[in-house]
Amino acid sequence: MATRTLLQDDALDPRAQAVFDDIRATRGSDFVNNFWRALAHDPDTLEALWSRLKTVMAPGALDPVVKEMLYVAVSTANGCSYCIHSHTAAAKARGMTEAQHDELIAVIGMAMMTNGLVTALQVPVDPAFKASEG
Amino acid sequence: MATRTLLQDDALDPRAQAVFDDIRATRGSDFVNNFWRALAHDPDTLEALWSRLKTVMAPGALDPVVKEMLYVAVSTANGCSYCIHSHTAAAKARGMTEAQHDELIAVIGMAMMTNGLVTALQVPVDPAFKASEG
Amino acid sequence: MATRTLLQDDALDPRAQAVFDDIRATRGSDFVNNFWRALAHDPDTLEALWSRLKTVMAPGALDPVVKEMLYVAVSTANGCSYCIHSHTAAAKARGMTEAQHDELIAVIGMAMMTNGLVTALQVPVDPAFKASEG
Amino acid sequence: MATRTLLQDDALDPRAQAVFDDIRATRGSDFVNNFWRALAHDPDTLEALWSRLKTVMAPGALDPVVKEMLYVAVSTANGCSYCIHSHTAAAKARGMTEAQHDELIAVIGMAMMTNGLVTALQVPVDPAFKASEG
Amino acid sequence: MATRTLLQDDALDPRAQAVFDDIRATRGSDFVNNFWRALAHDPDTLEALWSRLKTVMAPGALDPVVKEMLYVAVSTANGCSYCIHSHTAAAKARGMTEAQHDELIAVIGMAMMTNGLVTALQVPVDPAFKASEG
Amino acid sequence: MATRTLLQDDALDPRAQAVFDDIRATRGSDFVNNFWRALAHDPDTLEALWSRLKTVMAPGALDPVVKEMLYVAVSTANGCSYCIHSHTAAAKARGMTEAQHDELIAVIGMAMMTNGLVTALQVPVDPAFKASEG
Repeated sequence: MATRTLLQDDALDPRAQAVFDDIRATRGSDFVNNFWRALAHDPDTLEALWSRLKTVMAPGALDPVVKEMLYVAVSTANGCSYCIHSHTAAAKARGMTEAQHDELIAVIGMAMMTNGLVTALQVPVDPAFKASEG
Repeated sequence: MATRTLLQDDALDPRAQAVFDDIRATRGSDFVNNFWRALAHDPDTLEALWSRLKTVMAPGALDPVVKEMLYVAVSTANGCSYCIHSHTAAAKARGMTEAQHDELIAVIGMAMMTNGLVTALQVPVDPAFKASEG
Repeated sequence: MATRTLLQDDALDPRAQAVFDDIRATRGSDFVNNFWRALAHDPDTLEALWSRLKTVMAPGALDPVVKEMLYVAVSTANGCSYCIHSHTAAAKARGMTEAQHDELIAVIGMAMMTNGLVTALQVPVDPAFKASEG
Repeated sequence: MATRTLLQDDALDPRAQAVFDDIRATRGSDFVNNFWRALAHDPDTLEALWSRLKTVMAPGALDPVVKEMLYVAVSTANGCSYCIHSHTAAAKARGMTEAQHDELIAVIGMAMMTNGLVTALQVPVDPAFKASEG
Repeated sequence: MATRTLLQDDALDPRAQAVFDDIRATRGSDFVNNFWRALAHDPDTLEALWSRLKTVMAPGALDPVVKEMLYVAVSTANGCSYCIHSHTAAAKARGMTEAQHDELIAVIGMAMMTNGLVTALQVPVDPAFKASEG
Repeated sequence: MATRTLLQDDALDPRAQAVFDDIRATRGSDFVNNFWRALAHDPDTLEALWSRLKTVMAPGALDPVVKEMLYVAVSTANGCSYCIHSHTAAAKARGMTEAQHDELIAVIGMAMMTNGLVTALQVPVDPAFKASEG
């Protein structure tokens, strides 16, 4: 159960209603998932987040399916169950194959492991990595 | 400073030396970064990790540059400074452009934000996301 | 299901019973939540934690409702579902309004985002921030 | 060292320059900290973030000093050193006293501890907490 | 519900079947837990992980029950509910007493607390700790 | 640099001085590390933490060296550099061998990896694990 009620369509104020309309138009689907319903109590945050998310996740220098996989990677390291479910579904909807899903999971596992090893060992950053930056 | 000394080439046992040789051959470079030098005290872990990492990060269903970006995403959520530096460098070496780097960072920021919002709100997973799985 | 049974009132040893009595007296309520019941197997930890928690969360230089909101903020970043539920309830009981809850959640989201951006960019701390400390 | 160069004032494009002008005007200070300089490579993210941050951290239902303390709490749980330094400085600039700083730190420590205990024990959420929500 | 189906015994490919056979032989039990069933879609990762896990968790310089407790400690800090349940069960199966479980949980709580205090205070590492390393 | 000054011996109030005296007596050494110096601004927290830490880390059902290794495990997952350095030093001082250090690090790496795999796959807890608890 959420710490805020999930607002149904008939309980939205006009600004939240407008965001829901745009979510539906953008996605070409009537379905609005629970995250937006919990957030709809606060039209300021709802508007700002939806507007920014639409921009960030749109096709650009990176493919949308890559962006969804990056989302799953961050959400896994943060342990956000909802986000893993929703962005795994989004990645599949954007064309992630089973083989890509396998590799996504394998890379996440490998990164988690070496994050732990490096941190336990407190390895100092090689000057070569710093030199290549900027 | 690391919690284990960084082993130099003349201090390696033969199994660690063989792994270093393969790192150099695989990468086509004489440079072996600090992570492997800290890990070289334990040839078992060194061998197992290098062997598995080589497989996981190789070209497959996902492009190696995408894999490096996923690595940066996980490492950022875990706050592993060394890993962010080394895998950002690796992503650049594999062709990540500045525009792709901008988008990688923007997606990470967006995912971190919605991870926090969803978690603070304790949003339950929509049945629709679960139905699409399997 | 917890990894330790939740002890009911008739299964407490005398030291745990005394802590439960004090929880009830302090809160003016008969309700003792699951956390204390799982912890009651270990009277040492139970006593030490309850005693310290009572002091730390009491009115002081910060208002108790602010302390509960700080608790929600930390618990969200750590992904502790139980703690988010219990301390959101405690914040509401101490007077957190809906508008304050909205802002709490918005600040958490913003902090999560910039934590991610700063970490991905590995931004060095400005000397000005260090100079202002001490 | 950052994974992107820190842009100095003479290297900004006009959109980034406009954001820097607004940061200076809003804060009444010439100082622009490193975070914005690292982010200035990507005017889209820079504009969106600064605009949203200005709104979220402004006085509202919560006092700005409380918002800065919440920022420190989240940043500590995420281990973001830069963010802890910058938002501790901001909290002090907005009036956080030494006694409030002590209590902020004590509450963070207490929350971290009970997050760990609850998680290790896998305590189920009490129905009473869920009932009070919505 | 998992983001991959949990493969039952009659749905395994021969390589996954061989791993399941070895899990059963090694553990002297017919039971194969859900983790391996979710992972069985990807025989490469399944084989590599099982093989490595068997080595790492075997008796060595550390007792297997200590290794299981270390596993619980890491899993708690990462908030991995499944891992806490499975490795607490494994620790009990390897002889962890109730008193040891109490102390494990108390140490985790203490470490979480001082992790938070140290990080909020941004305490610099004492040269004495660095000098003792290597 | 810490967000609070590190108090030197001539700047302590009497309650903090008494804690420092007990740290020195308990450890049989004149050295008091930076953590306690940063915490000494707040004698309440200093007293409560030192008193509890002394109890929790003392010999009991678990050996002190095991407790120090558990501390390193939690601190690694939380990315607390100071804590990793100080508790690795403490584990060595209490007799952790190089081979045990290797295994500690290998178990941490393995746990981090499976935490990530389990979380990305959202594996449901087996009823068998729950049945064995209580």
